Amino acid sequence: MEERFKKQMDFLLEIDKVKSIFRQTYLADKSRFENDAEHSWHACIMAVVLSEYFDKDVDLLKVIKMMLMHDVVEIYAGDTYCYDAKGYEDKDERERQSAEKIYGMLPEDQKDEYIKLWREFEEGKSKEAVFCAILDRVQPTMLNDAAGCISWKEHGIKKEQVLKRNEVTFSGPENISQYMKDIIERASEKGILK
Amino acid sequence: MEERFKKQMDFLLEIDKVKSIFRQTYLADKSRFENDAEHSWHACIMAVVLSEYFDKDVDLLKVIKMMLMHDVVEIYAGDTYCYDAKGYEDKDERERQSAEKIYGMLPEDQKDEYIKLWREFEEGKSKEAVFCAILDRVQPTMLNDAAGCISWKEHGIKKEQVLKRNEVTFSGPENISQYMKDIIERASEKGILK
Repeated sequence: MEERFKKQMDFLLEIDKVKSIFRQTYLADKSRFENDAEHSWHACIMAVVLSEYFDKDVDLLKVIKMMLMHDVVEIYAGDTYCYDAKGYEDKDERERQSAEKIYGMLPEDQKDEYIKLWREFEEGKSKEAVFCAILDRVQPTMLNDAAGCISWKEHGIKKEQVLKRNEVTFSGPENISQYMKDIIERASEKGILK
Repeated sequence: MEERFKKQMDFLLEIDKVKSIFRQTYLADKSRFENDAEHSWHACIMAVVLSEYFDKDVDLLKVIKMMLMHDVVEIYAGDTYCYDAKGYEDKDERERQSAEKIYGMLPEDQKDEYIKLWREFEEGKSKEAVFCAILDRVQPTMLNDAAGCISWKEHGIKKEQVLKRNEVTFSGPENISQYMKDIIERASEKGILK
């Protein structure tokens, strides 16, 4: 097998492990936690279906590539719950090392391309990165809401934490922003979010 | 909430059920069956990483949309194992009804777009549909090979069935075709495929 192709296939097999990285989000039917592969797939379809609400000059293919790939670093770094302050202390360093390892399995040009894409996502400045950041929050919030917000309950999350975490979504399209605010407000009124 | 946006969010929540549609493919570590959402995510990344081997004028965004969406019909139709001759008798009709139901949750224009895309995938004639058909076979074959071909063993699959099922991959890029032939040949030599 040609060396370039072999590297690509080895990478594609290795990322199967993403399916065993579980998040703190329950499926809508509460049966179990969602894993990173499922989350990425769901957020990608969300990007396709809701793309009309974002700027016309956003590169949708780039958004989807970013979204497909963004959690691959968690294979070695693990999932860090978005309200885990302690986990966030060394999250960047863990994920940076993991990115080198996982994307380093690919041919040099692809390694460079995907690490660049992942950094752009992490920095959250480009239009595509902001688009991803918004859906990366809306997707689990939608599931959490459907599941009766048990994830927030279990971790004793406060309203101000949720507002801070989801700040970027309030700067997004009006209907998406309102959708997020409504979920947070309902959970607050019910006393789920303190 | 605006009606159009509500329909889109209702659809996006409903497709969470794809994560509970399990296939006959084991994860590479043999721990459990893979589900449709994971399969779609994996095949999408495969499309991105291996796109260089396909015709330059293939529309990669279209390929990915097709791949993200193609198994959503299995929410109501269930997964039909590719070697289940009996299941294939009414597969088309079950999936057609399911497509109407699931894509029918969306605004009319998106329903039409995604049903058209799904039919194009099923017909397997356009360049994008052939690209998808190939990866839709390479992804589970890669996992099955990594897992010691237990899926073929458990179902007592014959070599001629696998050759027929994967015919489209042999007309694809040379390295992908050879990769598939090698896996089938190895399984045959080991006596796994009769």
